[in-house]
Amino acid sequence: MERFRIVMSGSGGQGVITAAVILSEAAVLYEGLTAVQSQAYGPEARGGAARADVIISDSEIHFPKVIQPNVLVCLTQMAYNKFVPIIRPGGLLITDNRYVTIERKIDAKQIELPLYQRVMDEIGKPIVLNICMLGALIRLIDIVRPESIVKVLEKRVPQNFIEMNQKALDLGYKLAEKFIK
Amino acid sequence: MERFRIVMSGSGGQGVITAAVILSEAAVLYEGLTAVQSQAYGPEARGGAARADVIISDSEIHFPKVIQPNVLVCLTQMAYNKFVPIIRPGGLLITDNRYVTIERKIDAKQIELPLYQRVMDEIGKPIVLNICMLGALIRLIDIVRPESIVKVLEKRVPQNFIEMNQKALDLGYKLAEKFIK
Repeated sequence: MERFRIVMSGSGGQGVITAAVILSEAAVLYEGLTAVQSQAYGPEARGGAARADVIISDSEIHFPKVIQPNVLVCLTQMAYNKFVPIIRPGGLLITDNRYVTIERKIDAKQIELPLYQRVMDEIGKPIVLNICMLGALIRLIDIVRPESIVKVLEKRVPQNFIEMNQKALDLGYKLAEKFIK
Repeated sequence: MERFRIVMSGSGGQGVITAAVILSEAAVLYEGLTAVQSQAYGPEARGGAARADVIISDSEIHFPKVIQPNVLVCLTQMAYNKFVPIIRPGGLLITDNRYVTIERKIDAKQIELPLYQRVMDEIGKPIVLNICMLGALIRLIDIVRPESIVKVLEKRVPQNFIEMNQKALDLGYKLAEKFIK
């Protein structure tokens, strides 16, 4: 299989680390894959863009850091400005269309989604934006089934929040639907 | 400064990833240090011991994976059996004395703490075992101040759980006190 090198980026508090951990666990526990998830914090982390890396493969992963992601998710303009230069040519860029204005042409498939807007309209809780993003991501890259994500959510999320998380996951999954050929 | 290569291990659901993320954020945001936090999941992750790695330094970190930790925390026997062989000679091993029976002599400083027992006695919620462990860890390695951990908790933990988390942190910090010369 193709090796997925994913960078999820946004601001602190948007839950990109949590989304990255959930994706990794789903891939390993329920899809029989191998994953490495990491965050590197340097001086730029203070006040800057948050970033979480995931590598998913069907074979052993030797170097855990993503240098050039073939999938880049940006939930804020600051994250976009900072990380778009590192995307791998021919990769996939997913942005939130409310917070990110695409400012340059790059050699990548660019998909703008109304993640934040639809989460607020249909669920009303920005805290599940990260799970909505994850729903869109797994629809677009087809590496982990939604039911595997749900199994991880059931273990990690308090009982009374599972339904809201599942709704956010479904919402993202459906938003990405029209970009699948 | 000495570079800390920390592995926190236990079973899935004990929150070692969360503890590792909190420690990393505190080090970077409030101590001016650099940190890399990662988890590598292979086939052995299924049903096995959970592991989260943290490297903390005052300079750039090039290779994010911990090969030989100089600090190893084990919250379960399975984690101990699996990871104790990788501890760096002269390192520090912290175990929970209810769940881990020390079975071999190793070239490391070994500290057994009643983390689980005291969390249950004094707080009654096993969910904060990871924060109690973090309290003990920062007392023993003196790399991040407790108030920096509290600042991260205040951002990450729902308002009504902050007091409980702070209590768990204090408890661990005090449990480790007598091992400090």
